[in-house]
Amino acid sequence: MSLVIVGSLAFDTIETPETRKEKIIGGSCAYSALAASYFTDPKIVAVVGSDFPSDVIDLFQSRGVDTRGLTIEKGKTFHWEGRYGHDPNQRTTIKTELNVFQDFKPELLPDYRRADIVFLGNIDPDIQEDIRLQLVCPKLVAMDTINLWINIKRDALLKVLKDVDMFFANDEEVKMLAGENNLITAGRKLLELGPSHMIIKKGEHGALLLREDFIFGTLAFPCENVVDPTGAGDSFGGGFLGYLDKVQSFEKKHLRRAAVYGSVMASFTIEKFGIEGLKALTLEQIEQRYSEFNKLVSF
Amino acid sequence: MSLVIVGSLAFDTIETPETRKEKIIGGSCAYSALAASYFTDPKIVAVVGSDFPSDVIDLFQSRGVDTRGLTIEKGKTFHWEGRYGHDPNQRTTIKTELNVFQDFKPELLPDYRRADIVFLGNIDPDIQEDIRLQLVCPKLVAMDTINLWINIKRDALLKVLKDVDMFFANDEEVKMLAGENNLITAGRKLLELGPSHMIIKKGEHGALLLREDFIFGTLAFPCENVVDPTGAGDSFGGGFLGYLDKVQSFEKKHLRRAAVYGSVMASFTIEKFGIEGLKALTLEQIEQRYSEFNKLVSF
Repeated sequence: MSLVIVGSLAFDTIETPETRKEKIIGGSCAYSALAASYFTDPKIVAVVGSDFPSDVIDLFQSRGVDTRGLTIEKGKTFHWEGRYGHDPNQRTTIKTELNVFQDFKPELLPDYRRADIVFLGNIDPDIQEDIRLQLVCPKLVAMDTINLWINIKRDALLKVLKDVDMFFANDEEVKMLAGENNLITAGRKLLELGPSHMIIKKGEHGALLLREDFIFGTLAFPCENVVDPTGAGDSFGGGFLGYLDKVQSFEKKHLRRAAVYGSVMASFTIEKFGIEGLKALTLEQIEQRYSEFNKLVSF
Repeated sequence: MSLVIVGSLAFDTIETPETRKEKIIGGSCAYSALAASYFTDPKIVAVVGSDFPSDVIDLFQSRGVDTRGLTIEKGKTFHWEGRYGHDPNQRTTIKTELNVFQDFKPELLPDYRRADIVFLGNIDPDIQEDIRLQLVCPKLVAMDTINLWINIKRDALLKVLKDVDMFFANDEEVKMLAGENNLITAGRKLLELGPSHMIIKKGEHGALLLREDFIFGTLAFPCENVVDPTGAGDSFGGGFLGYLDKVQSFEKKHLRRAAVYGSVMASFTIEKFGIEGLKALTLEQIEQRYSEFNKLVSF
């Protein structure tokens, strides 16, 4: 099959209680594509400025990522600055400089339009919708979002949601969008708005996969060494969809495993700053952690 | 084997966004003992006032609970009043009237002292210590606590902790007591303070069982119908220890199953007000939910 990932490539300035990292590589597309690259050869759709280092594009390509959908514009790459408190779930955005990302209106290449699986990463829902309309008979369209869009572009978001198959969102976003405090009830409400699959990301508490006929839960890997939580959700989505693209199946058993592989990839991401944790994993490391998840929950 | 449960019996006045219930039966001992009673015949140690309804004591006895350790004092039963917000994890204590519970200094009956498993439910750590010293060669002593004791009786709490085998606490309490934000690291720190087993309760996110040589995680049952979260943790502990008492084993596989049975019992508790959900379950209902947990996490 084939997987297209649409999202941001960025410079991230990240402050944790221990360290500050200036302008390291980030963005949802970077995390998702690298995580997916251990399962399939994802095609990416993104935009960067002329200041974006070419060795990062080389890295993507060396990991099998198809970068023909990456546009390099004159100007500066998107820059995000955020700060984490002692509780890594508490993140404050300090600065957002959209730069070339401001006019991101991608036109998909012909083979991208015919992708089997498309991941509309967290971007403006109007752009997500625009891309969705370019697709030709996709087997599965997944989308992600953040609370910003729920707050300022709710209608546009609901419009995309109506026509996608899978919605990745965190627990707060699910409750907020559904207007419902019980997470399961909230997830079920969103299933009525379009997507046949809800993937509820719960950070350190794992994730839930909700479908009308079944529910599956995975824990997060018990990491003691959380260096930088940035990109955990994007890595989860990339691992999830990358695995599905590899097995060419949306059967329940594969959806379950996809959720675990997603959690595995997220766990590698947060152990290092930025995309460092996803640069040079071996399949053995991934399989070993997958089997540790099995030990973690089997009874 | 034999299981002794020490804790409170109370009248609880509970307010949720939907309903208010005046002076219904509650207290950690009520929840733990009823939950355990589906696995074994627990002996309880508690105190009530002369206003405590005798039909509740009859209920305990009809469920096989040994009530010889229950003292009925002249005066009023402990009364707790609490309010839940729309987020059931947010609980505010409105009123605490200790009444006869104020002078609770139980002297254990001879056969109680020789119990195999003892659960020191959430009470003043000085009383927990006093009871612990009365025990004769227990196989497993477990304790629970709340943030109140961490705040006002930290030293006494640490003293009991040093000599128990299993510590039940919620995630906030674990982080607070360990002075550490990473939950796994915090749990491991507490393992160094005495107990060989940490059971970290995470409410709607499930529970973690931490031992030096292994870690196990269970999800909470995905309840859409959370009527009253009171007693979930106590029911978890009662189900956990009741199961261990039944199987007479502390092997890893039984500890894992104990955690799942604990989650099963907690899930029945929160579906109704007070102890209603624990009054008349069948073993079939319990086993069925246990197998649903298996479906929930297997991949």
